[in-house]
Amino acid sequence: MSRNIQVSELDRRAVEDQSVEIVERKGIGHPDSISDGLAESVSRALSQLYLDRVGKVLHYNTDETQLVAGRAAPTFGGGEVIEPMYILIVGRATKQYDGEELPVNATALAAAREYLNETIPELEYGTDVIVDVKLGEGSGDLQEVFGEDGATVPMANDTSFGVGHAPLTETEQIVATAEQELNTTYADEHPELGPDVKIMGKREGDHINITVAAAMIDAYIDDIDAYAAAVDNVEAYVTDLAEDITDREVSVDVNTADDLDDGSIYLTVTGTSAEQGDDGSVGRGNRANGLITPNRPMSMEATSGKNPVNHIGKIYNLLSTEIAESVVDEVDGIRDLQVRLLSQIGNPIDQPHVADAQVVTEDGIAVADVDSEIHEIVDRELADVTDITRKVIEGDISTF
Amino acid sequence: MSRNIQVSELDRRAVEDQSVEIVERKGIGHPDSISDGLAESVSRALSQLYLDRVGKVLHYNTDETQLVAGRAAPTFGGGEVIEPMYILIVGRATKQYDGEELPVNATALAAAREYLNETIPELEYGTDVIVDVKLGEGSGDLQEVFGEDGATVPMANDTSFGVGHAPLTETEQIVATAEQELNTTYADEHPELGPDVKIMGKREGDHINITVAAAMIDAYIDDIDAYAAAVDNVEAYVTDLAEDITDREVSVDVNTADDLDDGSIYLTVTGTSAEQGDDGSVGRGNRANGLITPNRPMSMEATSGKNPVNHIGKIYNLLSTEIAESVVDEVDGIRDLQVRLLSQIGNPIDQPHVADAQVVTEDGIAVADVDSEIHEIVDRELADVTDITRKVIEGDISTF
Amino acid sequence: MSRNIQVSELDRRAVEDQSVEIVERKGIGHPDSISDGLAESVSRALSQLYLDRVGKVLHYNTDETQLVAGRAAPTFGGGEVIEPMYILIVGRATKQYDGEELPVNATALAAAREYLNETIPELEYGTDVIVDVKLGEGSGDLQEVFGEDGATVPMANDTSFGVGHAPLTETEQIVATAEQELNTTYADEHPELGPDVKIMGKREGDHINITVAAAMIDAYIDDIDAYAAAVDNVEAYVTDLAEDITDREVSVDVNTADDLDDGSIYLTVTGTSAEQGDDGSVGRGNRANGLITPNRPMSMEATSGKNPVNHIGKIYNLLSTEIAESVVDEVDGIRDLQVRLLSQIGNPIDQPHVADAQVVTEDGIAVADVDSEIHEIVDRELADVTDITRKVIEGDISTF
Amino acid sequence: MSRNIQVSELDRRAVEDQSVEIVERKGIGHPDSISDGLAESVSRALSQLYLDRVGKVLHYNTDETQLVAGRAAPTFGGGEVIEPMYILIVGRATKQYDGEELPVNATALAAAREYLNETIPELEYGTDVIVDVKLGEGSGDLQEVFGEDGATVPMANDTSFGVGHAPLTETEQIVATAEQELNTTYADEHPELGPDVKIMGKREGDHINITVAAAMIDAYIDDIDAYAAAVDNVEAYVTDLAEDITDREVSVDVNTADDLDDGSIYLTVTGTSAEQGDDGSVGRGNRANGLITPNRPMSMEATSGKNPVNHIGKIYNLLSTEIAESVVDEVDGIRDLQVRLLSQIGNPIDQPHVADAQVVTEDGIAVADVDSEIHEIVDRELADVTDITRKVIEGDISTF
Repeated sequence: MSRNIQVSELDRRAVEDQSVEIVERKGIGHPDSISDGLAESVSRALSQLYLDRVGKVLHYNTDETQLVAGRAAPTFGGGEVIEPMYILIVGRATKQYDGEELPVNATALAAAREYLNETIPELEYGTDVIVDVKLGEGSGDLQEVFGEDGATVPMANDTSFGVGHAPLTETEQIVATAEQELNTTYADEHPELGPDVKIMGKREGDHINITVAAAMIDAYIDDIDAYAAAVDNVEAYVTDLAEDITDREVSVDVNTADDLDDGSIYLTVTGTSAEQGDDGSVGRGNRANGLITPNRPMSMEATSGKNPVNHIGKIYNLLSTEIAESVVDEVDGIRDLQVRLLSQIGNPIDQPHVADAQVVTEDGIAVADVDSEIHEIVDRELADVTDITRKVIEGDISTF
Repeated sequence: MSRNIQVSELDRRAVEDQSVEIVERKGIGHPDSISDGLAESVSRALSQLYLDRVGKVLHYNTDETQLVAGRAAPTFGGGEVIEPMYILIVGRATKQYDGEELPVNATALAAAREYLNETIPELEYGTDVIVDVKLGEGSGDLQEVFGEDGATVPMANDTSFGVGHAPLTETEQIVATAEQELNTTYADEHPELGPDVKIMGKREGDHINITVAAAMIDAYIDDIDAYAAAVDNVEAYVTDLAEDITDREVSVDVNTADDLDDGSIYLTVTGTSAEQGDDGSVGRGNRANGLITPNRPMSMEATSGKNPVNHIGKIYNLLSTEIAESVVDEVDGIRDLQVRLLSQIGNPIDQPHVADAQVVTEDGIAVADVDSEIHEIVDRELADVTDITRKVIEGDISTF
Repeated sequence: MSRNIQVSELDRRAVEDQSVEIVERKGIGHPDSISDGLAESVSRALSQLYLDRVGKVLHYNTDETQLVAGRAAPTFGGGEVIEPMYILIVGRATKQYDGEELPVNATALAAAREYLNETIPELEYGTDVIVDVKLGEGSGDLQEVFGEDGATVPMANDTSFGVGHAPLTETEQIVATAEQELNTTYADEHPELGPDVKIMGKREGDHINITVAAAMIDAYIDDIDAYAAAVDNVEAYVTDLAEDITDREVSVDVNTADDLDDGSIYLTVTGTSAEQGDDGSVGRGNRANGLITPNRPMSMEATSGKNPVNHIGKIYNLLSTEIAESVVDEVDGIRDLQVRLLSQIGNPIDQPHVADAQVVTEDGIAVADVDSEIHEIVDRELADVTDITRKVIEGDISTF
Repeated sequence: MSRNIQVSELDRRAVEDQSVEIVERKGIGHPDSISDGLAESVSRALSQLYLDRVGKVLHYNTDETQLVAGRAAPTFGGGEVIEPMYILIVGRATKQYDGEELPVNATALAAAREYLNETIPELEYGTDVIVDVKLGEGSGDLQEVFGEDGATVPMANDTSFGVGHAPLTETEQIVATAEQELNTTYADEHPELGPDVKIMGKREGDHINITVAAAMIDAYIDDIDAYAAAVDNVEAYVTDLAEDITDREVSVDVNTADDLDDGSIYLTVTGTSAEQGDDGSVGRGNRANGLITPNRPMSMEATSGKNPVNHIGKIYNLLSTEIAESVVDEVDGIRDLQVRLLSQIGNPIDQPHVADAQVVTEDGIAVADVDSEIHEIVDRELADVTDITRKVIEGDISTF
């Protein structure tokens, strides 16, 4: 059966050409991102547990982690957490299969511990943070199966919507790249930078302003001068990085709310604001492509923690992003592309109600010139929908 | 100081004129809406507590309610909740002022109980649902004050973004009105309809499809025929309601996932799917205008539960919606309007970095014709920004 | 098979004749007693639930309620709870039987709510106190059955020990009666007296000192004079009551830690010290006969909340007390009697390893005079052991 | 002021000479003992924290740990925990002093983690067990001070009672020694023996029966034969140990509830029954001298977790035990000794209302012969009461 794929002209200017653009990314150490990351790591661990024990992924959803902030007393040279954070992992999971009990709660906790140790290394598990878990018994419905020997395409059981975009605008690239680089390359050499890096990009015409809120880690900062230097370093690094991406005018502000004279600075013990009053939960921050982009249509659906075998919202958000990226990789002349997938209850999910690719072409290119190429790619990617599931389980796609 | 207000042409067709439109509203009994509603009712109660006790609103934020679903055994004529839901109210609040202890946790619990009793009357507090609370000590920062004798305009302490739209499209009107009417007029005469009504509107060209998922309450439904009749009733009611709003072709589907032969139907004990496996949390559902509208720019910011005195995201989301509505009320010839407010750290919030009104005018009307009128209204509403705070505290504006 | 019943002389003076005697009773509103009472009321409710639904009592134990104290701000005329208490009901229960799900958690919560409303009426459920529940899945072992149509005698699966005494000494009578009367007759006419009444009796030779710690309820007390009068009233009431019981010299002290000049008094909002810093848990207070009696052998076993069908410790503690009371009722000439029951693993519980009645006879009476009578009563009561289970389920025996 | 010390003849036979004796000890891995141990380790850590930070011990009490059992699936060669245990540390503690915030919750969690790692090494912290904490704000009352530079003797603020005994009977010695040796010497060479060892001693005349319930650890046991051998080894070890202590006839039973044919054995993953349905809490198990001895007067007061500076019940229970041991060490001819301390509200605690030493002397020795010696020792130890506090803080006295 042929798929309902529509390619048309996008009814607006490319975001790159709009006069005002706002982009945001909450770094991996932001309380909302911690929640997303925990939800998704628990999800991956449960998928793996089910594959290992029963050969197929059973029903679960773990998309509701709640982080309750703690209190800390940071001090130059190293302070302490006063009141531990509390994290509640919430969801449903199948706890028994064919007479065998499955350690879903223990598995969830182990995944959470490992994830926290990796992403917030200064946070001591068990004393700086309490992790609790409430996974209810999942329903026995096991219609959708993703097994060891391959996958069947599940049926849509809900009306759901996914949306993806490509290519990233310059501002989006800067915001995405800056967070990624700060939290890897830069942090490796600058242990004073914590993982809670929040980046806001604001473009007005040809001026891009990047605002970075960067949690500094007190153990690596001896005094206010060292702090000021650390902030300056981040600013210089992000400025360089941005100027590699764009020819537009760039300004970068780091920790603008600081008041150095007051000693009111962004100093933390653990590298995340969750230690001091900032709560977090799943689905409140970055969308599936890692960004918050009010200039573009966004899905409200939380992607992290959802079951990657049968949750259409999750699959469609990730797939539409992949489709958009593939099209832009393979087809020349596209300035902006928006892919929307809308499910049809009762149909297999590779047969959406509509798959709709809207495009802004570059000058001199008509939609008709790229129409069939785009159509083909959309069709191919839809046919391969279960590949998304596999990648998610293996941790090859980020969901936030 | 004059405000930076820009009025320009909106760079796309009016949503009403786009070929595909998707709109969703999660009714007040949906688990995410319950969380939103609890967060906001707790917020209102705390504002009121502070006004009563110390004459001004102190620092707090209660925007992180987590609902962990229960399990239920619905039966025609009346079943029971097997495993109670668990709701954790999360946030920060000032617990002491001037030597006096303030009962913030007890106040939060009282507000939650009252809210649940009102909105989910079949849910028995304390046995069908456990409500717990973790409100950390808020910081002592009390710079922004909203007192009995009037309000000062607070400073923006964050870069934040709000967006509002008007007028509603027909599809949006149908979705919004249907949920509202079902949960008031209709439910008053049809006690079998629970408050967990989720409505998805999908317009393709001139055909509007409305999908309703309506939780039926078992105590008021005696058998499968009564259930089928209840579903048919909702369908007829929504069809009529929609046809009053639009001349387009309308189709309405209610509880499409049902399989009456199987007995697989949407029957509940309490009127919400939270009783059986559907978790919920704040900020995951409806935006500040009560709808999820992927055709329009949306803010990811959770509005419910935020402090209405000093949380810019909350204020700007509500205010931009109010501005858009005022403009459309007062100015003729507007087919679609989008108002964006972007804060400037360190400025009073009535002085945004930019207030940007983008408009699609009706045929024969130019932007220049309405420019100054719009400008004036935006200016007036910004000047009156603290009115939003007052209305929120008094419960006169819905946040979800 | 004949039972191993031994009657012998008790190897000490009657407690009444010892030179120093200490007796304590924590009233029903004391945090430990609240925990005991909740555990037992939950137990009764579960027994009843099982009887109603499946016709027999299934496996459960609910003997581990933990009460975390709150904080309150009492004031003459009526103060408020600042920080609610938190109560966690802990145990195991069978949640499924023969394919039917049983609402054990909802039942436990309903029982807890009802119990608190009855015993601590000033405590508002849901705002002054949060009740949470963690009942794990009980093992499927259903060997012991107490059904609608009568009971079989279960086998002992543990080495356990129960001990009972009779008659009460005068000091014991005063302590027990004073708490009971204060919490019923007296409180009915004196609403200012809260249920958290702790009574310590101390007899040295022929002088009995009764110390009462009585939580007064602020809503019924207007000022310090009213408070002083309330304390005096309790003192007079207990003095009268004690003098009706004994001819010994009696002194009564009420709220001795008060300092009226300082305003340091025992004033509460709810009538229990659990509102302000006093935690509680099961099995830490009164023994099965309602008293703490260091002059007598006591079992450490918590009686409240245990399954009354198959928990030997519970059954033997209650049964040995009943036996002792029956003997003293029916046999003349007994000054002190101690009954011990020791289980034998693998034997029916009406066949203890040893049932041992030790007696102090009155002057002129020899053990041999009462030996056979006592033997017969012990034998009869053991034969009727399942009657204890029935009485516990029906709430006819107090366990603390 | 001279102390009110009374020495008299004990009004019963020495326990060693009574016809029936029952003694019990719950090993360190028993759920109640885990709770006791956690409460006490948290208490020690808080005392140390206060001494380190402010130079004196502030107000706290942590005597209410609640352990909610988990579920496990033990298997020969190594199984797994399915459902983690949940431990809630409860109490009050001073969180602020002189403007400095004190990390009481983080300290409590660190102490708990260390204690569990040491005593239940097979229990993986954070996945096999969740540790949560609710320490309310303690009252600011800091009257009693135990500082770096020495201690002042606090005032009694409650009527409280402590009791101690010496020497241990043979049965008591066997029970105490067996648990201690099994959990140290024996376990070092037999890793299959878990720390949850419960020992019941029952003496009838000159026959001592020792019943041991010993949790075996599955990772070290390959099959049912290895299990049977492990059980036999414990039996032989305890038999030898008992025969070294007594000349009476000894029988030892280990894991009597096992049914090897059924495979119904006492096999665990972690070495404690808390992994599978056995909840625990503070003060429900061993008394301050490490034993449960229904033949002797016992205090109901929980000793573990109480503040060692000002909790009279704790101090008097430990002190009376120390006094009894000192007297028996230093004075010849004592067959049984019972020391009781009763506080006097408002007096310094080294001035009890009465300190009462009751003695059974050996044949040929009169009370008058030892009276003054005993009096002197009691007086000396009372004078040195703060030494108990110091030892408790330093972990030199066990409390359970």
